[in-house]
Amino acid sequence: MSKLIGSVVTLAHGGGGKAMRDLVAEIFLPAFDNPILGVMEDQARLELGALSVPGARLAFTTDGFVVRPLEFPGGDIGKLAVCGTVNDLAVGGATPLWLSCAVVIEEGFEFEKLRRIVASMRASAAEAGVLIVTGDTKVVERGAADGLFITTAGVGVFPPWRNLAAVNVRPGDVVLVNGPIGDHGAAVMAARGDLALETELISDCRPLNGLMNALLDAAPGTRCARDATRGGVAAVLNEIAAAAKIGVAIDEAKIPVRPEVDGVCEILGLDPLYLANEGTLVAVVPADQADAALAAWRACAGGAESCAIGEITAGPSGDVVMRTRFGSERLVDLMIGDQLPRIC
Amino acid sequence: MSKLIGSVVTLAHGGGGKAMRDLVAEIFLPAFDNPILGVMEDQARLELGALSVPGARLAFTTDGFVVRPLEFPGGDIGKLAVCGTVNDLAVGGATPLWLSCAVVIEEGFEFEKLRRIVASMRASAAEAGVLIVTGDTKVVERGAADGLFITTAGVGVFPPWRNLAAVNVRPGDVVLVNGPIGDHGAAVMAARGDLALETELISDCRPLNGLMNALLDAAPGTRCARDATRGGVAAVLNEIAAAAKIGVAIDEAKIPVRPEVDGVCEILGLDPLYLANEGTLVAVVPADQADAALAAWRACAGGAESCAIGEITAGPSGDVVMRTRFGSERLVDLMIGDQLPRIC
Repeated sequence: MSKLIGSVVTLAHGGGGKAMRDLVAEIFLPAFDNPILGVMEDQARLELGALSVPGARLAFTTDGFVVRPLEFPGGDIGKLAVCGTVNDLAVGGATPLWLSCAVVIEEGFEFEKLRRIVASMRASAAEAGVLIVTGDTKVVERGAADGLFITTAGVGVFPPWRNLAAVNVRPGDVVLVNGPIGDHGAAVMAARGDLALETELISDCRPLNGLMNALLDAAPGTRCARDATRGGVAAVLNEIAAAAKIGVAIDEAKIPVRPEVDGVCEILGLDPLYLANEGTLVAVVPADQADAALAAWRACAGGAESCAIGEITAGPSGDVVMRTRFGSERLVDLMIGDQLPRIC
Repeated sequence: MSKLIGSVVTLAHGGGGKAMRDLVAEIFLPAFDNPILGVMEDQARLELGALSVPGARLAFTTDGFVVRPLEFPGGDIGKLAVCGTVNDLAVGGATPLWLSCAVVIEEGFEFEKLRRIVASMRASAAEAGVLIVTGDTKVVERGAADGLFITTAGVGVFPPWRNLAAVNVRPGDVVLVNGPIGDHGAAVMAARGDLALETELISDCRPLNGLMNALLDAAPGTRCARDATRGGVAAVLNEIAAAAKIGVAIDEAKIPVRPEVDGVCEILGLDPLYLANEGTLVAVVPADQADAALAAWRACAGGAESCAIGEITAGPSGDVVMRTRFGSERLVDLMIGDQLPRIC
């Protein structure tokens, strides 16, 4: 227990006075330690420097995280909050640079847990090569939130020539994934404990900017990339099909799914295509660059099991069709909601 | 009631599927309508254009909003979420340009109320001249949040020559405020209804970028500015004193406080210096530019009652001292917490 801030968060820690100053000084500043954050003005001041080339554009994104439980095999809400925002920047082809971190904490939350989560944010930010440069802390009464919510926003820079977008895909392009799908959804579900599932599953939560750099080097014609979070690979493919007004055809037999994930899905009547991921990259590349892209990914952490799972077709426009293991075809539609609330 | 999305938010609306797409399409996209948001990639793409002058720097900030009640005289959580982040950019001397908006909604929240709050965000963004370019929607079960939390982040641009910072202040500088203090805190407190206070008070919530522009034109030597939110004017003055290692002396008789705010404070034993504001600008300017700054503010909306409330002194370092109406002096220390939780 810290003499300065006690063992649990109180309403005073969100009050804008000494208690909040002490919390920030004891928990956030040392973890996110960097000269920009240390300035403690109301806004971070960021030098674009060499990135400010003519025509450079900024990338800007945000994500709120409400995952339950807060800690699960392979990650926690802090790692999610950093990786999720880094990935939303990276999949567009931007270089992620700076993150913000706003927390809403429920009164009574343990500082020890908060420290672990903040340490996890620090580690993920270091892995992704980004700085957490600005933040905010709010505390609400017991019962007015569920432990801890984290919202991150991120800023990155696009080189002038980069233009990845779903509308760029063309019939004949190949659809790639960087590895087995559904790990995050299945791992979080198992961690909730209400299922009494014993698995070795861990979330795939990871920063994807390394894989994106490898992809863009090896396959400079890459049309677009997305990370398949809520709604899973199915949602991403549907978004691409709808935006580009083309069709997508995938092969069930080619889609990598771990046996444990398949097992969880079978017990619960779920479909791994719709399970959330937090380190799964879906990319669409011209057919003649697919092998180079896969070779590059396979040499990267998080890419060893990369493979092609299908291709872009002329249509019907907006349709995602899966060739099943039995040789039939079925439509992979967008779900109404999610199989699992609060997965991220 | 909308046929498409129903009358209340359900868990499905946070699920990454059709229901979320419909919610975003029906509530957020039409309200925040702009071509950048409409692109619907995982990240907003921002052209720096003419702002990308050599040496230009970005400003980046975030704030979470958990105010209770969500709607109060003079504003609501949406207006707060836009103005709060715009103001954190503006007070540093940056031009606020782009905002993100991440919401955490409790299951069962009424769409009618959400529409009102989002309309209020739209109006405040228009007033401040910023675009809301990226967002995220999460829904949690009943009881896991208190209605609605909004986290905004903001990006702006500093001109290369601008360098406002608390460390710049010098003994002899003058401390200005743009009008009566404590309105927001008193208005929200009265709106909670547990006090049975009948007042005409309205929050001062407003974007401050217009006042900041006027200040910087009229008083180019301005040392620093802050908006006095949680912790009130007392917190801001303490932050400046601590950062610059100087003293601040203010005159109680010069501090503008509405009689209704004084009345609320007297009944509840509060001090207006510590009440939260959401449109109150504290600026420190060289003595010879104070009159020009005040004249410029008085010509602006939200600045009619601007005045000088004190000056920077040699010390004791870090101390804020108030000369009372009775001629005595008292230390204006930083509070431990806040007089009022969930004020913003």
